[in-house]
Amino acid sequence: MNTKYIYSFDEGNKEMKSLLGGKGANLAEMTKIGLPVPPGFTITTEACNDYYENNESITHNIIEEIELHLQKLENNLEKKLGDEKEPLLISVRSGSVFSMPGMMDTILNLGLNDISVVALANNTKNERFAYDSYRRFIQMFSDVAMGVQKYKFENVLDKIKEENGYKFDTELTVEDLKNIVEQFKIIYKREVKSEFPQNPKKQLMLAIEAVFKSWNNPRAITYRKLNDIPNNLGTAVNIQSMVFGNMGQTSGTGVAFTRNPSTGENKLFGEFLMNAQGEDVVAGIRTPEDISTLKDIMPDVYDKFIEITNILENHYKDMQDIEFTIEKEKLYILQTRNGKRTAKAAINIAVDLVADDIIDKKEAIMRIEPNQLDQLLHPTFEEKSLKEANIIAKGLPASPGAACGRVYFNTEKAVDAAKNGEDVILVRLETSPEDIEGMVLSQGILTARGGMTSHAAVVARGMGKCCVAGCSEIKVDEHNKEIRTIDDTLIKEGEYISIDGATGFVYLGKIDKTSAELSGNFKELMNWIDEYRDMNVRTNADNPRDAAIAVKFGAEGIGLCRTEHMFFEEDRIPVVREMILSNTKSQRLVSLEKLLLMQREDFVKIFEVMEERPVNIRLLDPPLHEFLPSDDEIIEELAKSMNIEINDIKKRISDLEEFNPMLGHRGCRLAITYPEIYQMQAKAIIQAAIKIAKESVKVSPEIMIPLVGEVKELKNIRELVIETVENTMKEEGLKIDYTVGTMIEIPRACLTADEIAKEADFFSFGTNDLTQMTFGYSRDDAGKFLGQYMDKDILEKDPFQVLDQNGVGKLIMMATRLSKEVKPNIKLGICGEHGGEPSSVEFCYRMGLDYVSCSPFRVPIARLAAAQASIKNAR
Amino acid sequence: MNTKYIYSFDEGNKEMKSLLGGKGANLAEMTKIGLPVPPGFTITTEACNDYYENNESITHNIIEEIELHLQKLENNLEKKLGDEKEPLLISVRSGSVFSMPGMMDTILNLGLNDISVVALANNTKNERFAYDSYRRFIQMFSDVAMGVQKYKFENVLDKIKEENGYKFDTELTVEDLKNIVEQFKIIYKREVKSEFPQNPKKQLMLAIEAVFKSWNNPRAITYRKLNDIPNNLGTAVNIQSMVFGNMGQTSGTGVAFTRNPSTGENKLFGEFLMNAQGEDVVAGIRTPEDISTLKDIMPDVYDKFIEITNILENHYKDMQDIEFTIEKEKLYILQTRNGKRTAKAAINIAVDLVADDIIDKKEAIMRIEPNQLDQLLHPTFEEKSLKEANIIAKGLPASPGAACGRVYFNTEKAVDAAKNGEDVILVRLETSPEDIEGMVLSQGILTARGGMTSHAAVVARGMGKCCVAGCSEIKVDEHNKEIRTIDDTLIKEGEYISIDGATGFVYLGKIDKTSAELSGNFKELMNWIDEYRDMNVRTNADNPRDAAIAVKFGAEGIGLCRTEHMFFEEDRIPVVREMILSNTKSQRLVSLEKLLLMQREDFVKIFEVMEERPVNIRLLDPPLHEFLPSDDEIIEELAKSMNIEINDIKKRISDLEEFNPMLGHRGCRLAITYPEIYQMQAKAIIQAAIKIAKESVKVSPEIMIPLVGEVKELKNIRELVIETVENTMKEEGLKIDYTVGTMIEIPRACLTADEIAKEADFFSFGTNDLTQMTFGYSRDDAGKFLGQYMDKDILEKDPFQVLDQNGVGKLIMMATRLSKEVKPNIKLGICGEHGGEPSSVEFCYRMGLDYVSCSPFRVPIARLAAAQASIKNAR
Repeated sequence: MNTKYIYSFDEGNKEMKSLLGGKGANLAEMTKIGLPVPPGFTITTEACNDYYENNESITHNIIEEIELHLQKLENNLEKKLGDEKEPLLISVRSGSVFSMPGMMDTILNLGLNDISVVALANNTKNERFAYDSYRRFIQMFSDVAMGVQKYKFENVLDKIKEENGYKFDTELTVEDLKNIVEQFKIIYKREVKSEFPQNPKKQLMLAIEAVFKSWNNPRAITYRKLNDIPNNLGTAVNIQSMVFGNMGQTSGTGVAFTRNPSTGENKLFGEFLMNAQGEDVVAGIRTPEDISTLKDIMPDVYDKFIEITNILENHYKDMQDIEFTIEKEKLYILQTRNGKRTAKAAINIAVDLVADDIIDKKEAIMRIEPNQLDQLLHPTFEEKSLKEANIIAKGLPASPGAACGRVYFNTEKAVDAAKNGEDVILVRLETSPEDIEGMVLSQGILTARGGMTSHAAVVARGMGKCCVAGCSEIKVDEHNKEIRTIDDTLIKEGEYISIDGATGFVYLGKIDKTSAELSGNFKELMNWIDEYRDMNVRTNADNPRDAAIAVKFGAEGIGLCRTEHMFFEEDRIPVVREMILSNTKSQRLVSLEKLLLMQREDFVKIFEVMEERPVNIRLLDPPLHEFLPSDDEIIEELAKSMNIEINDIKKRISDLEEFNPMLGHRGCRLAITYPEIYQMQAKAIIQAAIKIAKESVKVSPEIMIPLVGEVKELKNIRELVIETVENTMKEEGLKIDYTVGTMIEIPRACLTADEIAKEADFFSFGTNDLTQMTFGYSRDDAGKFLGQYMDKDILEKDPFQVLDQNGVGKLIMMATRLSKEVKPNIKLGICGEHGGEPSSVEFCYRMGLDYVSCSPFRVPIARLAAAQASIKNAR
Repeated sequence: MNTKYIYSFDEGNKEMKSLLGGKGANLAEMTKIGLPVPPGFTITTEACNDYYENNESITHNIIEEIELHLQKLENNLEKKLGDEKEPLLISVRSGSVFSMPGMMDTILNLGLNDISVVALANNTKNERFAYDSYRRFIQMFSDVAMGVQKYKFENVLDKIKEENGYKFDTELTVEDLKNIVEQFKIIYKREVKSEFPQNPKKQLMLAIEAVFKSWNNPRAITYRKLNDIPNNLGTAVNIQSMVFGNMGQTSGTGVAFTRNPSTGENKLFGEFLMNAQGEDVVAGIRTPEDISTLKDIMPDVYDKFIEITNILENHYKDMQDIEFTIEKEKLYILQTRNGKRTAKAAINIAVDLVADDIIDKKEAIMRIEPNQLDQLLHPTFEEKSLKEANIIAKGLPASPGAACGRVYFNTEKAVDAAKNGEDVILVRLETSPEDIEGMVLSQGILTARGGMTSHAAVVARGMGKCCVAGCSEIKVDEHNKEIRTIDDTLIKEGEYISIDGATGFVYLGKIDKTSAELSGNFKELMNWIDEYRDMNVRTNADNPRDAAIAVKFGAEGIGLCRTEHMFFEEDRIPVVREMILSNTKSQRLVSLEKLLLMQREDFVKIFEVMEERPVNIRLLDPPLHEFLPSDDEIIEELAKSMNIEINDIKKRISDLEEFNPMLGHRGCRLAITYPEIYQMQAKAIIQAAIKIAKESVKVSPEIMIPLVGEVKELKNIRELVIETVENTMKEEGLKIDYTVGTMIEIPRACLTADEIAKEADFFSFGTNDLTQMTFGYSRDDAGKFLGQYMDKDILEKDPFQVLDQNGVGKLIMMATRLSKEVKPNIKLGICGEHGGEPSSVEFCYRMGLDYVSCSPFRVPIARLAAAQASIKNAR
């Protein structure tokens, strides 16, 4: 049997997303439950894949199937595509499995040509509408299907408006529109090198192909990359009979969310424009009206709409994002989908749905995208500073968050500045898909036009990026690169502003921020999370400040405390340098004695914050060269204070230089050469732990030996550390619990984990270095090619951000299995940066790790990801 | 039942080496077959391990067992240790499983004390002999068992000789010797802080313990490391009743090989000294006489000895190294073992034994130590240069080979110089075990004293190191660091000499060398090897010269031809730099067009040498930065020739610098960025192959993509290469066979080898980089700690020399298994430097690799190792 490539809306349902795309599946579902959906059919995602497999051509049997379904649609509606009496008009829309706002292209009013436009005018008795539709169609078709740039058409429009002194498109007369249509056709011919196609079937095939092609346009690829959507899903194409929101003042079109997507409040939230087509709302060119005003204009339609939104939310058990059109007072639903929302809204909606018994706690937990929590965990403006701040404008609070940065007026400049380490606010009249990269790299986005559902707003919320949209109080001059405020303040490119996406306020200059709190529904949800979570979450923290933030966010211990960061502090570094440059062991011991006192205090403070929670301390890791100065002045000073020749110091520094320091004399290799360094550190840890134990709580430090690749390294150093610890405890007259383990970050450590486990109380996977060595990438250098690797689809994700389960993951699996074979109770954790990345956390859960460890601000994300992993695994 | 820790010589046999050590097992065997071996017993290697397990103490039950066996020996000989009438004297000698010449210590004449020495004098009617034996015993016991330095005793001896105007020890009178004994006892008391032990059992226990301890003395550890002998074998101790070679002019002692250990000639080869103990021969202090002169002195003893040597060689089916003593015309055999030999001798003996039907071809192959062949494969002095060379002396041709170097007179200086990259000739009066490191690092060894079986000669032959021994024509002044020749030429430290270990000639200055040939028995053996070998051996060669040498040595193809080496040549590098510094692709293409012509010629020449043999060419691998100049002058020139600003070039150079170039933008990563480079190389390879194919033989190049870690890298580049190849073949109008594969040198490539195999016709394991990344060691930097790692026994071997089967090997095993699962016929090889290291070659064989590839001079070694692996595996 042949594959079925096309489904009528009445043949599908909402479970068929992978075949029909999200839009198509939901159109079918709404048709099934009797909602007013204009009839049509969906060409499947398999047809798209077939198109690419056949060297970008639509095969004969698919064309036949399209014609068959079109004929059915025509028979059903008693209209005919391009007919001179009853012309059928259709829309052609993409619909992939995952919603990809603004990424894919739509063509409305397909079927219009010089003949059917006359019939449309006659049938609707609205010649103006007919020609307005025709000129829109030519413009969209040329742009979307044939790649003719939009501005070429807009120039014509603007010229005619200017000549006639019109302000709005609505002022255009029928004659103006007929004129425009002719001029548009000329542009088409000039640009495409052929006549504008009058054959509607040809229009249709070109449009379908355009949708297929758009699956692989650069912005779609970028969006998929940003959102981790596989490239081989393909897009479906929805062919639907047109309804018109632009048939005069009893028609309109709009978008609504069943709840507030920004706050989660259970109140219809939406906008509409009368006498407009959908594109006018989404593009944000005209600022639309609030949905509540529809009640006054068309109360019956409004009530019907409310009824439908309730049906949809109950049916889908989630907040819906609905597109609708009113054609001459008749309401049509064109699309529904689970609405994108801020993290705050996501949490509030999930908690409310649990309270209303619509979903259970597990479902609520699964509803939250872990990465989205990031929005809630970052600082907001400090109350005090806010009072003194200079408000320069207020826009729409489109995506919450607080951001300060230098203003840039185009993506290119914004990207450059961000890559130079600047904090950037991207300021645009309105954003378009071309701005995606600039938005990703900016701290926040400010637009002058567009509503809460404009491109900027929707995309920023998806990214969890602070955004103030539709800020009409400011004039944005993209050409001269400046903002002018109501009171004539001028802000030039590179100057600082601050924006608050939760309030819509825009401030001059920088404003202090405070850190986030877990409270209200968020706190509630985090409690539920901990009910279902059965993997611990720790934090990477090298100082009491970070440790305290992490504890507030629910960290259950420290998974990685890097001692070298303490060495870099201003009062320490001269002593560290003395130690390194010592010519003899006895000289070195003098410097180490000084460092002992400092390190002990560091550990005391961290233990005080962490109390009885486990603290895993990694002994010195970087190559010694990293601590040495390159600046001549500092070298001179050092020489003076150490009373040695400058040239001796320089020689020593150059001796310590390495070709590949990443693979050099570092980690435990240092301790084989200079055991006294680790002895000092072990002593400092134990002295600090005993001090705390004597004063208040019992602490059990975990001492971690880095960079072990061969069991004998660990055995040698472990013996050294244990001897030091036991001697210290004897001296201090108190015994405490402690463990000694190792970081697993060298491929060979994974391969010989059975041997290494015998000498280790715990393993902590250092996935940063493990990724470097498994791929043979230096993180410091890989930037030179990783971008191209992702552009060319050689790597789907940056392996330094998302754990490479296929390669690095196999080593972790081996190490886990081998170590458990010889020591079933060995404690296993991860402390690389992947410990806070949701898919990597899930992997760690599946591997049976005891904990993940991540930066303080990612602790709640890791907790959520861990809970989701538990729930998924239980299913 | 208790473990049996002691075996009488009549209880064991030659198969019990691991328990009795080599010496003990052979003493037992000789006893068994009725040879005249002085009776005794062996304490097992297990007793030695027991000693170390019991915190370096001999346990009670072992002591009891020793006493029991001693009693049996006393009863048997009707003598008693320390007896005032019939005193038993014994020797205490170490005997480990593997022969370790000079490494372990021997004590003779044990049992002598102030009482038994009188009895010995009475019984032998030779007071002088008795006291000479006593003073020797005190000296050896003090040195070996108690660590008192020898020179302290020798000073006394020298002083007495000087006072009396004696030249030789033999001139010492009985009174002198009694005096010496007393003085020695005083030295003992002063140094050891206790009286010299008069209780013979105490002497014995201390001596046994000294042997056990010597197992772990630094020189033994060094020897084991150099010879890959495990540390946990332990040593046995042989207790044997004494026979005396120093009982006057009818007594003597000697060493003989059943064949010539230097050439393999089937003729008794040996030396002896009349009226001497064994130590006098081995230490090389007196120059001994040739074994043939024994026939004149004692014809009966000589005939008996000849008979015994024949028995022994036939019994052991191998050339024997035999120690004997004649006590008053009665012959005793004290030791036999398979004799150490040069590679040349090993081959000649093996081939002769096959000819005589004593062993078969397989056994002959197994008899040759692959690494030993190295001796035969290295250059000898060029005939022509030799004729003009200035001979300054002639010594004994102790170990063949030709060496030039600067002279150094002690190990410390020699080691320093060698580590600074100098070629060194170590010149000593005579060598001792302390010189081992210096011998290892020298090009050759020259001694003024000692015979063909002196320490220097035996050890140098074992190492395959060129040695001229006993060169009495020169005066070596170790103190003033100079050599004075017969004609008064003075050679000072650091000056060049050349030595020929095959002729014994010493030359002034440097002499040109020529490369080696496979001929005669060597050729014959290599033919046998190829009968049993079923893994191919290729070579790593980047130029026609190396390729030709390798073919001569039996290489069956090129396993790695590194194209970048061609880029570095003087006429190329400016073009390469232009190419790298191009700002645009079209600029780059201009430079690449020039390089194409050059590379094509390179490949043509290599194909001409290799003919129909496979040639595997690796495309560009190193980071581009490596090709760029750092010298300001060259940069200036380059700027001028390229017509760009100096600062632009400098900026470009600094942009290309990397923190960890090893893990940076190199290998196939370059081709993702600059596909045109690989396109040029692929084109050059195919054009060259087609040229050769048109002119003479069919060549089938293998195109190798380096540094693949992810299948999509390979897929992308493979497509590019194939497209280029197909286009080139179309242009040239001829099709040839070619394959495209990849180097497996990134851990992730091994982990995902199933995916990668789908896109590869072959895998070649690049074990150099694979070792770097698996261990996280940079080969350029690891020198800073690898030495310490081996000293501290953290690593047994340098993983860059001997493949780490435990870690890197696991990855290779995974890759082999995974790739064969998806592509059973995939061609697998290795091209890292391990491809010529015997244990690594055996590993490759076990993994089922199709070939190993190594440097040209190691090809015969790899062939032998491969044949041995086949034979071992078949067993």
